[in-house]
Amino acid sequence: MSKKNHNKVQQLVAAHQTGYALDRAFYFDQQVYQTELKQLFFKHWLYAGHSVQLAKPGDYFTFEIERESIIICRTKRGEIKAFMNVCRHRGSRICLSRQGSESSFVCPYHAWHYNLDGELIAARNMSEDFVVQDYNLRQVKLAVLGGLIFVSLADSPLGLESINNNLSAVFALYGFEQMKLAYKQRYVIPANWKLAVENYQECYHCGPAHPEFAKLHAMAKSPQQFLAKKQAYWQAHCTQPKFQSFDYYFNLAEAGQEGFQYDHNPLNKGVLTGSQDGQAVAPLLGELTDYSGGASELMIGPLSYFLIYDDHLVAYQFLPSAVDECVCEVSWLVNGNAVEGQDYQQTSLTWLWHTTTEADKRIITHNQQGVASQFYQPGPLSPMEGFQQQFLAWYLAALN
Amino acid sequence: MSKKNHNKVQQLVAAHQTGYALDRAFYFDQQVYQTELKQLFFKHWLYAGHSVQLAKPGDYFTFEIERESIIICRTKRGEIKAFMNVCRHRGSRICLSRQGSESSFVCPYHAWHYNLDGELIAARNMSEDFVVQDYNLRQVKLAVLGGLIFVSLADSPLGLESINNNLSAVFALYGFEQMKLAYKQRYVIPANWKLAVENYQECYHCGPAHPEFAKLHAMAKSPQQFLAKKQAYWQAHCTQPKFQSFDYYFNLAEAGQEGFQYDHNPLNKGVLTGSQDGQAVAPLLGELTDYSGGASELMIGPLSYFLIYDDHLVAYQFLPSAVDECVCEVSWLVNGNAVEGQDYQQTSLTWLWHTTTEADKRIITHNQQGVASQFYQPGPLSPMEGFQQQFLAWYLAALN
Amino acid sequence: MSKKNHNKVQQLVAAHQTGYALDRAFYFDQQVYQTELKQLFFKHWLYAGHSVQLAKPGDYFTFEIERESIIICRTKRGEIKAFMNVCRHRGSRICLSRQGSESSFVCPYHAWHYNLDGELIAARNMSEDFVVQDYNLRQVKLAVLGGLIFVSLADSPLGLESINNNLSAVFALYGFEQMKLAYKQRYVIPANWKLAVENYQECYHCGPAHPEFAKLHAMAKSPQQFLAKKQAYWQAHCTQPKFQSFDYYFNLAEAGQEGFQYDHNPLNKGVLTGSQDGQAVAPLLGELTDYSGGASELMIGPLSYFLIYDDHLVAYQFLPSAVDECVCEVSWLVNGNAVEGQDYQQTSLTWLWHTTTEADKRIITHNQQGVASQFYQPGPLSPMEGFQQQFLAWYLAALN
Repeated sequence: MSKKNHNKVQQLVAAHQTGYALDRAFYFDQQVYQTELKQLFFKHWLYAGHSVQLAKPGDYFTFEIERESIIICRTKRGEIKAFMNVCRHRGSRICLSRQGSESSFVCPYHAWHYNLDGELIAARNMSEDFVVQDYNLRQVKLAVLGGLIFVSLADSPLGLESINNNLSAVFALYGFEQMKLAYKQRYVIPANWKLAVENYQECYHCGPAHPEFAKLHAMAKSPQQFLAKKQAYWQAHCTQPKFQSFDYYFNLAEAGQEGFQYDHNPLNKGVLTGSQDGQAVAPLLGELTDYSGGASELMIGPLSYFLIYDDHLVAYQFLPSAVDECVCEVSWLVNGNAVEGQDYQQTSLTWLWHTTTEADKRIITHNQQGVASQFYQPGPLSPMEGFQQQFLAWYLAALN
Repeated sequence: MSKKNHNKVQQLVAAHQTGYALDRAFYFDQQVYQTELKQLFFKHWLYAGHSVQLAKPGDYFTFEIERESIIICRTKRGEIKAFMNVCRHRGSRICLSRQGSESSFVCPYHAWHYNLDGELIAARNMSEDFVVQDYNLRQVKLAVLGGLIFVSLADSPLGLESINNNLSAVFALYGFEQMKLAYKQRYVIPANWKLAVENYQECYHCGPAHPEFAKLHAMAKSPQQFLAKKQAYWQAHCTQPKFQSFDYYFNLAEAGQEGFQYDHNPLNKGVLTGSQDGQAVAPLLGELTDYSGGASELMIGPLSYFLIYDDHLVAYQFLPSAVDECVCEVSWLVNGNAVEGQDYQQTSLTWLWHTTTEADKRIITHNQQGVASQFYQPGPLSPMEGFQQQFLAWYLAALN
Repeated sequence: MSKKNHNKVQQLVAAHQTGYALDRAFYFDQQVYQTELKQLFFKHWLYAGHSVQLAKPGDYFTFEIERESIIICRTKRGEIKAFMNVCRHRGSRICLSRQGSESSFVCPYHAWHYNLDGELIAARNMSEDFVVQDYNLRQVKLAVLGGLIFVSLADSPLGLESINNNLSAVFALYGFEQMKLAYKQRYVIPANWKLAVENYQECYHCGPAHPEFAKLHAMAKSPQQFLAKKQAYWQAHCTQPKFQSFDYYFNLAEAGQEGFQYDHNPLNKGVLTGSQDGQAVAPLLGELTDYSGGASELMIGPLSYFLIYDDHLVAYQFLPSAVDECVCEVSWLVNGNAVEGQDYQQTSLTWLWHTTTEADKRIITHNQQGVASQFYQPGPLSPMEGFQQQFLAWYLAALN
């Protein structure tokens, strides 16, 4: 990016008024978007899937972000590795399916042949001075946290020690490593990615826009009501290990570490889990022995969110596909021993967050249409949008 | 717009050769388009609908231009007001339907609540220092001329006194205020808006391209034949009030006033109105007692045109949606007392101008394809394109 | 193009590493694309069709490249001429069909009337000082080589004498002038045009990607095997006139002359022609009396390729439609006396190259997706991609 364009982005950042929504340019400007790709998406850790999706050596799936495609596979030695899905010869995609199983990767164009570690092992009819070892697939940094696979396109990604150390008990309690991917859906939203993320980060809209959610989650109430309810709930249950709270998120992240946040919040009275009637939809997770009437929220990096009910986990990954389009990938995970049709029904399991995400898609689309107006003026945010404000402060600093 | 881009537009304007078609750049250049939005579309008055569409307090419809959406509604006190369909909180669209009836406007996102005057009356859970009165919806200037609703996005719009004063007799004669919207259709045209407007403003193409129109309107004949026919017609009828002529259009507009033009022209022999067989298709308008064999043409501002037959009115509104796409909204209005199925049939009423607009859409599309050529050279205009030349002269001056 | 943009293209050219694939920018940059249009597409000769498509005066077809449309017709005197399909009045397309027959060309907009030589012969209601002769359609340079029609949008196109002189015996042998267009298909490929051309110019991918082709053509073997096979084949047959070789292509083109290349290559053992089973699919071409077990390859200009089997000819024309989309037009031509259903079946005739082109479309699409990655690095080319390297060297020089 030229110095001129950098200055333009800096001027937009400097002109932002704290406590207010973002200016129109942040949602439409190509320079802002290119800066975001570089400073956010190609830097932070992104949730790509669960290790149970790669049962045996050779199993792979691809992870797509913007114009990038990444192969994530289990190697012969059982490790999980990631590399760019771009042939080192003339750049063709190598894996054309979203998932599969291969003993090695052969580029469909000119048959350059890579092993499961992404190393080039054969290239037909090349010059004598061609050195096979020079053309391994570009490795992508990968980490597994409690079975969850994260990737980073950065050369030197942020550390994950803080997350691992702090959350190991939570991961163990909920049995993160023994989960099963029950369902996954992509929602393509014709809006800038920030409108989707901002929407996820505030529950000011839950009351008016999500009656299904508001019926179940205490969070949709006014701040006073919610805090009172939360206090009572914690006092009654806080001996359990899931009642912890970590806030190393956004500007509170430790130096050089990926930011994260973990919190546990009450559901409404009589509600066990995030389902249409609030009743159980799957076997209890991990080491849990009973429903406690709450749900945990976990955020790892700026774009990967996890909502953990006692009987299932919903993973949200927000990804840009263009300045005016983003994708929300939602995964539903259950106890690794659960059997579909017997222990859970897919439609019951996914009802709440499919309904809510479809509603959010509409809301976000209308927000995009509105901020496209030359007469749109960023308005003041509510205290119920405080978490969104933390995101905005962090986001603006990250553009520098 | 930067000074550099402004200079570019100015150079294009300076290079234009009077009497010739516009250069290719005027139809494709983004800087030209942005200048047009600012200097034309967001400045002049635009026809948005008829007051009969808002029968009672709370009735509203939206008017869309480019990326803007405007709510036009009847207030509790019976006034008609317009405001941007953009919430003052985070910019969401407020009204999602093209028309409806509401006792107040509640933003579907966070439930900010506006009355029918666009004033914010409630916003949940805001800070204590939040002043509700500071966040009314942005008012849009609105005027009603003979029942026709016009809006202007300008802060200080052009005056409408000249139109009101000069046309009051015409409005009264045709009963403009007591009309009924019989039908409305949007035609999306994959072409720059000027090709659509230029097409509307000349009848050089009517003979070759619109046999249906040419059969009915004397205007499709050669200039000599048309003028002779018009003279004879005026001598026979000119005592009636519709036989007037006002030309305050384009460069002839009075200082500070919106431009307009009114003229009355003969139909072909035996033709009563703009219908497939030239015979009546609806009850006479307003105070008319008989068909006179002519039709009035009224243009208000650069983009709103009205063709007034003795028994119905056809309103044309041209609106850009992007540099290479525009929308032509056509409305058919009849006597306010007419009953569909009894006094008029929708298909008969709309036949001529639906047929003609579909043909124009094809013509304009082929024109866009042709001027996209790097080898396109603007050619000389015909005297029958004189009115289009007036438009071009005014348009080029307006870009400055 | 501004000096700044020119410099940018020059820097990209200078940064290219010989022997490697092109950098990402060459496939996505708008300045590169505009330079290509000017320096390549609007300069070189392009195959547009065969003269047999214009049997009698008034017959025409249109040829589309990027945003340009060209009318190619047979005049009253039997000549073949080409002109821009852009009216000299206001730029409308004149011919709206891809092919047809007209006694003259009347613009559908305002009825400007051109004869079959593209001369304006009438324009209604123009000013008295209007000179009809000043507004003929813009002529496009056209040449017929052995019945094949080529057009050039250049003012002073490259010479074709070298091609005509060297190839006359080949044209006569194969009866180029007496061919029949059996079938034509457009393949729209969502990729930069160079990825399509590069794909056509190397057979390194034929083995892995085109089993149908590899079964028939010796060229898909390793270079050593292919050369041995070719030597044996030439020794057995080289008395025939089709066994010639001309390499005046790319940087070897004679000064001021269009580049071309002609070569004759063996098919696999027992294969007569390019068909599913290698057996004959149409009557022998021209003066041929038997199958010789080979096929000729002819390239005229950088974008028009001809594969000549003993019983049919396949013509490839590559055309850009945008920086990220191109069109591959494939024509199958047979002996002019052949009768469909009797002497050949369309599906048998087109099977091999329809199958192969569909496969190439997939390959090229995946290549485009891969080079879109910010992590794509151009890799080293194989000796089997030598011809592609010649193209790249010539292409980079042509951008200057």
